[in-house]
Amino acid sequence: MNKQLIFVKRPEGLPESNTWNLEENAIIRPKNGEVLIQHHYISLDPAMRGWMMDRKSYIPPVQIGEVMRSGSIGKVIEANNHPDFNVGDCIVDWGGVQQYYTTNGENCYKVDDSIVPMPKYLGALGMPGMTAYFGILQVGKIKKGDTVLVSGAAGAVGCLVGQIAKLKGCIVIGIAGGKEKCDYLLNDLGFDEAIDYKSENLIEALDKKCPKGIDVYFDNVGGEILDAALTKLRLNARVVICGAISQYNNKNDIVAPKNYLSLLVNRATMQGMVVLDYASEYEFAAKEMAMWMMQGKIKSREDIYEGIENFYETFLRLFSGDKKGKLILKIS
Amino acid sequence: MNKQLIFVKRPEGLPESNTWNLEENAIIRPKNGEVLIQHHYISLDPAMRGWMMDRKSYIPPVQIGEVMRSGSIGKVIEANNHPDFNVGDCIVDWGGVQQYYTTNGENCYKVDDSIVPMPKYLGALGMPGMTAYFGILQVGKIKKGDTVLVSGAAGAVGCLVGQIAKLKGCIVIGIAGGKEKCDYLLNDLGFDEAIDYKSENLIEALDKKCPKGIDVYFDNVGGEILDAALTKLRLNARVVICGAISQYNNKNDIVAPKNYLSLLVNRATMQGMVVLDYASEYEFAAKEMAMWMMQGKIKSREDIYEGIENFYETFLRLFSGDKKGKLILKIS
Repeated sequence: MNKQLIFVKRPEGLPESNTWNLEENAIIRPKNGEVLIQHHYISLDPAMRGWMMDRKSYIPPVQIGEVMRSGSIGKVIEANNHPDFNVGDCIVDWGGVQQYYTTNGENCYKVDDSIVPMPKYLGALGMPGMTAYFGILQVGKIKKGDTVLVSGAAGAVGCLVGQIAKLKGCIVIGIAGGKEKCDYLLNDLGFDEAIDYKSENLIEALDKKCPKGIDVYFDNVGGEILDAALTKLRLNARVVICGAISQYNNKNDIVAPKNYLSLLVNRATMQGMVVLDYASEYEFAAKEMAMWMMQGKIKSREDIYEGIENFYETFLRLFSGDKKGKLILKIS
Repeated sequence: MNKQLIFVKRPEGLPESNTWNLEENAIIRPKNGEVLIQHHYISLDPAMRGWMMDRKSYIPPVQIGEVMRSGSIGKVIEANNHPDFNVGDCIVDWGGVQQYYTTNGENCYKVDDSIVPMPKYLGALGMPGMTAYFGILQVGKIKKGDTVLVSGAAGAVGCLVGQIAKLKGCIVIGIAGGKEKCDYLLNDLGFDEAIDYKSENLIEALDKKCPKGIDVYFDNVGGEILDAALTKLRLNARVVICGAISQYNNKNDIVAPKNYLSLLVNRATMQGMVVLDYASEYEFAAKEMAMWMMQGKIKSREDIYEGIENFYETFLRLFSGDKKGKLILKIS
């Protein structure tokens, strides 16, 4: 049998536990040209919150009654004349939060888990890694000597953004919640400065820790932090809008960037990005990220919880911030 | 004697009449290498409001006790060995709101008022023209077939933005206040659609008049109109932040663009611009604008009031919208 997390109720505000139902259904045997994948790990990402909203966005919303969408990784346990995948292959897919996934291989790709353990393929070598890579390099257009500020800096994307910026010769300031995360940025990841938004006054901390202002701000959180960052832009600064996790569960109006006229005064640019646009370049980027990881230049950590039954409690950690690095659920 | 408008009190909110004092002081005779210019016309621009604020911006604020800054045009009436300017030359300068201006010629340039009447050099061939030209072409990056929305569309900058976009093969929708202005856009300037924000529901009007969404939004006004426009962005749209006249006199928090996450969903860009950055290209742009005007492809109108004593009442028209085109004060 296949345990599947079914999306049953569109949430308003912070999702409640009745948003999903855990169901057990028969495993679907692969037809000709298909494979059956047993999922080992599920990726939990802030973007999931957006996929539940019934509105136009960069991909269609998850529909009521469907398996909850997620990135996943697992192994082929049965192959029925599939042209590319064989039993034992390790596959990254979009099969969602379920133990078994039967597919013709669309939007799936094979990776080698004998070189790198599976969870990394959902983190630094997966969507968060690609988001960081293209976001800071192609949208942020960093160059040596730039001062780069990143929010959600201890998160799956933010920690990579900061490390890539360091690699490229930038001065990097990270914003994160709590002393442990800030210590991690400074001591383990080599950030130049860290700001604990839970205990520091943001504007004062920015004045002190990036006194010359910011050339690039990479925003994962939105809200008050985005608004504060806007006040520190330098001439021709770039603001990368990657996410706004502080606002995703707002039932009312979001906290909007009232300092947006800083864009005018500083001839700055604020640009949104969606990682899917860069799919044709993933392979090149993943190779570069893997090389940096093997050279010890980029570190990542995964925070792995266990059991598909514990999806909901684990999911909430995305919004409480109670996690260390990439949030992952082991389901087999 | 020289009547000068002296900036005496920093305004909060909408400037009151005690923001300035009209003083009469002796005309300063030109020293060696200087000229004395008699100002004929003063340019009244929304940017003036920003220059009065005591905060970091793209140019230093006007200081208390100084002549109020403005773009101006006049004629040399006395020249003391100036290398470039002679008596009778028509000069555009930054001499501010005063009848006579003595200068070594810094930031001044000569124009020919026998070809084009002086007020045009403060409008379509001056800062508003340059702002429209570089804003829509270089920041907006318009291309044939784009749908272009412009706010403040009957204003000095907006009407030129729309006409340049039409010239380049775009579909152009203008937002303006009142039927007269909307009729002007449609009947005189060749806009495809006009929206009267004073009598129409903005979101409904946008749905109807640009059903496929917007590729470029050129924003002169900020506030609710910017926020509405953000909801209509197409993929890879560009938002040009040129001004925010609806917010300049706000004493409290400005109306912020709470729909900014449309930038993310649509991979769109919001970029600020300041025309001064393009100074090295003004000459080229002015030639092209002049050619378009001579070919009848671009029209502009000036709304000219008279008397330096009437500066304050005329200035208020910038914010009430009670003007037709470029606002100018004739002072001699």
